[in-house]
Amino acid sequence: MHQAATAPTDFYPKHRELLEQAVAACAVRGFWTPYVEAPSARAYGAEAAEEGEAAFRAHLDAPFPLAGQPGTGSVPGAEVSPYGFTLGVSYPRVTPEEAIAAAKSAAVQWRSARPETRAGVAAEILARLNAASFEMAHAVQHTTGQPFVMAFQAGGPHAQDRGLEAVAYAFAEQLRHPVSARWTKPQRRGDPLALEKTFTPVGRGVAVLVACNTFPTWNGYPGLFASLVTGNPVVVKPHPRAVLPLAITVRIAREVLAEAGFDRNVVILAPEGERPTATDLATHPDVRIVDFTGSTEFGDWLEANARQAAVYTEKAGLNTVVVDATDDYKGLLRNLAFSLSLYSGQMCTAPQNILVPRDGVATDQGRRTADEFATDLGGALDALLGDERRATGTLGAIVNDGVLKRLAEAGGLGRTTHPSRELTHPEHPEATVRTPLVARLEAEADHETYTREWFGPVSFVIATDSTAHSLDVFRDTVRRHGALTAAVYATDEEVLDAARSAALDAGVHLSENLTGAVFVNQSAAFSDFHGTPANPAASAALTDPAFVTGRFAMLQSRRHVPAEPAEAAADA
Amino acid sequence: MHQAATAPTDFYPKHRELLEQAVAACAVRGFWTPYVEAPSARAYGAEAAEEGEAAFRAHLDAPFPLAGQPGTGSVPGAEVSPYGFTLGVSYPRVTPEEAIAAAKSAAVQWRSARPETRAGVAAEILARLNAASFEMAHAVQHTTGQPFVMAFQAGGPHAQDRGLEAVAYAFAEQLRHPVSARWTKPQRRGDPLALEKTFTPVGRGVAVLVACNTFPTWNGYPGLFASLVTGNPVVVKPHPRAVLPLAITVRIAREVLAEAGFDRNVVILAPEGERPTATDLATHPDVRIVDFTGSTEFGDWLEANARQAAVYTEKAGLNTVVVDATDDYKGLLRNLAFSLSLYSGQMCTAPQNILVPRDGVATDQGRRTADEFATDLGGALDALLGDERRATGTLGAIVNDGVLKRLAEAGGLGRTTHPSRELTHPEHPEATVRTPLVARLEAEADHETYTREWFGPVSFVIATDSTAHSLDVFRDTVRRHGALTAAVYATDEEVLDAARSAALDAGVHLSENLTGAVFVNQSAAFSDFHGTPANPAASAALTDPAFVTGRFAMLQSRRHVPAEPAEAAADA
Repeated sequence: MHQAATAPTDFYPKHRELLEQAVAACAVRGFWTPYVEAPSARAYGAEAAEEGEAAFRAHLDAPFPLAGQPGTGSVPGAEVSPYGFTLGVSYPRVTPEEAIAAAKSAAVQWRSARPETRAGVAAEILARLNAASFEMAHAVQHTTGQPFVMAFQAGGPHAQDRGLEAVAYAFAEQLRHPVSARWTKPQRRGDPLALEKTFTPVGRGVAVLVACNTFPTWNGYPGLFASLVTGNPVVVKPHPRAVLPLAITVRIAREVLAEAGFDRNVVILAPEGERPTATDLATHPDVRIVDFTGSTEFGDWLEANARQAAVYTEKAGLNTVVVDATDDYKGLLRNLAFSLSLYSGQMCTAPQNILVPRDGVATDQGRRTADEFATDLGGALDALLGDERRATGTLGAIVNDGVLKRLAEAGGLGRTTHPSRELTHPEHPEATVRTPLVARLEAEADHETYTREWFGPVSFVIATDSTAHSLDVFRDTVRRHGALTAAVYATDEEVLDAARSAALDAGVHLSENLTGAVFVNQSAAFSDFHGTPANPAASAALTDPAFVTGRFAMLQSRRHVPAEPAEAAADA
Repeated sequence: MHQAATAPTDFYPKHRELLEQAVAACAVRGFWTPYVEAPSARAYGAEAAEEGEAAFRAHLDAPFPLAGQPGTGSVPGAEVSPYGFTLGVSYPRVTPEEAIAAAKSAAVQWRSARPETRAGVAAEILARLNAASFEMAHAVQHTTGQPFVMAFQAGGPHAQDRGLEAVAYAFAEQLRHPVSARWTKPQRRGDPLALEKTFTPVGRGVAVLVACNTFPTWNGYPGLFASLVTGNPVVVKPHPRAVLPLAITVRIAREVLAEAGFDRNVVILAPEGERPTATDLATHPDVRIVDFTGSTEFGDWLEANARQAAVYTEKAGLNTVVVDATDDYKGLLRNLAFSLSLYSGQMCTAPQNILVPRDGVATDQGRRTADEFATDLGGALDALLGDERRATGTLGAIVNDGVLKRLAEAGGLGRTTHPSRELTHPEHPEATVRTPLVARLEAEADHETYTREWFGPVSFVIATDSTAHSLDVFRDTVRRHGALTAAVYATDEEVLDAARSAALDAGVHLSENLTGAVFVNQSAAFSDFHGTPANPAASAALTDPAFVTGRFAMLQSRRHVPAEPAEAAADA
């Protein structure tokens, strides 16, 4: 459809207004999005759902073409849908050396483009990704195991939001200083000294995106677009089990780049072959930026070893809920049960450690001890997930065997108050579906157990001596092990103040008294900062100025110019 | 003079207008400064010069008091004026552990202050530093060896400019996001979802400033003030030969902090005792920010080892001049000779490698070969430094024996075209004064010699095959070894374009055709970026957004609020 035209297209005028709105939205931080989150025919067209599914089906058991990529041969696809079938897609093979060399060569022209041009290209890529949201939804569903509607939203419009947010920050940051400036210094005698100075943003160099299994686009787009718009080529290294969503992304990016008159190798897909390539890519001397989402172990390794690069990591942590009191106990339980169930808790933002005073919390349903709270939470999970058909629409499927292993290990602790159940997906009988497990731990005795991350449908109701004790545990464990999210339930303003203060000490974003239709694991682009370098779970927030300023440098040149008559006169 | 008042002073209202001007100046990048650079009675008062000198004299051979610092005992001063006398100042002793513990404890209250309050405190510190510029000038002169007027300017108002610039960037950066925001998301049915969100900038943690011998204040203030204003306490570790300028700075900072109602230990002076402490301080787990100016060796070590901290380094490089042609040969020579002579070339910005085509450059005085250029440059140095009395006012004194050793080594290369001379300072007969040495090298044969930094009065006229060859050498050596400055002399627009492009490739700021009263080693705050992470000589620029964004994180808290009637109605 999108052939490279003979005359390159400047996409900036088309998206200028959108970019200005996005830049403004970053500063206002209210609700804003240009991409419709509902998979609706009204927004996406009557045929979009069907065409998107057909486009996805056409990828199966076939090579994925990316014309003009460096390298030779193909990488057999290792992707298996958590819903129970093999995708069978193969991808172009490219070695790290080939990918980096091609990206470097493509960078020369990309670097010399104005930030406006690059932002225009990025906005056009996002517009076409938005139009492909149904194709993407299926690709995300069948690589991550997310339920369909979530795969549509998180993999499509919400990921596009995060991408546009990164575009906006990267774009605005390069415009903070003028293209040129006049420096006129008065002299005690004679004409003032005058210099003309030009300022040019220059990308840091080749960027590598090491993407994750569960949210390949939502977690991948910020780094991809921040690097691109600041003038860097990007080598995309997908998780071997979630290649397709990023292959579609790279295909669209390369189409737009070609139409804009750039070397398509500004964006390259570099899937793994027989052995992992992330370490080779990330430590290559020509690689100057690395974005990574995934395990703490590999994230820490990258931070320690990819020393030639600016490294942005999002790793794991201990998402914590402090419960002190509530005037809407049912709302609390319903809200928390949903947070634990959504995509089977396979979110970096899903709660794990729920701290409840042993003697109980005050609620509108009377005082509930920690034991009773654990039982009530199990009841809320049963209520939420009672209807199997509806339950699978929330739970999705288990993404990989690591999650199942941890679930079995949690069951073996012997502290389960609400066991995990196996469910059968009505449309995908082969899918691996599990409900959340809740275990009841003690703050002191079980410290070692709950200070590891149990990624997946495992959470702990942890009995403490008091809310003050809960806050100490919260502060201490998050400072040391990190967290992406934290939540508090309290009715007393002083307790809320103490929780806010503890969250600032721990260095984590806080959600207070969520009992309705907003959940602690949701993070809205343009309003919520996702992650923070203030605790060990991440080295950067998505997206803020710190996420983009290190991706380029502002270089200047200066030269003498004659003082203008007015300047000379003013000094005479 | 400045006693802590019983009621703390909020300094923000007093400096609000100045801060707003400074923030605006950063974006405009023209000429702007609130601090008068001339050591004049009109600007600083009739008694200022005499009082400043008396204040300096009073420090000599005495303990420097810093009431309320942690630690016990004192560190005997190791400071010897390059002008030939021992300062004999002793400083309060504090161990790294004591300093960091006190800073950490002082951070709690400092962190909770609003950015406005912190910026007000910083601006007041700078105002009092400005008033103390004469005292500072003597302190800088007699620790660095700078000539007096330069010590006044670079150590006083110009350093204050750089400090205020860092204050402005740090202040503005924390105000880019609102204190609170309302997020209202329309729902398909019923009232919109509404959340109130608060955003709090939180400092990263204890900062350590490892300062240098030659420009303790100019190079030290950006990191000091950027860390302070973003909510971090700062432990100041001066170079053992240049403690006094930073001791005066810390004294004033602590006075202002106390008057503003803060723990004075937000800023602590931690001079070295018997053994170096920079490694202990920089790698302490509680230290989260390190600023360093000095050797490439230690800067690289810090970047590799202070992994728990954000590290900002300014190291050494190969400042390069590419000469192709000029229509003002005398101006070129005069300008370059001054750049080599100012403070005996002991500036991180002084030129070292002057690339000249062997067959010569076109000038308004006819074609000059590389040999002739070297001779002419020697002649320009002789003309500039012929009058001994005036010469010492430009050269200052040699800061330490390392510089003398390198000068002797350069003389031993056997390639000298203009030897270094010893001069006698008219007022300080014990001062070590040397004129610059120029040697004539070959681009190929002497590659190893000129790809090291020869910090001090040593420069090389390096013969190349052509200007294209010069640009290749420039691009290649600066990419690999770094540079703080670069300059080009050319009359052909195509050659200037090629030089600009080479400077962007090399990642270095460029000055073009400086033949008048602006010199390549000058860098004006609010207009020139000093240093850049785009080449290995530095990991950051002074000062830009990247220099401040990593010093704090923005943490958020969010809670439900009822939808307002208007919002609800809009959706109904």
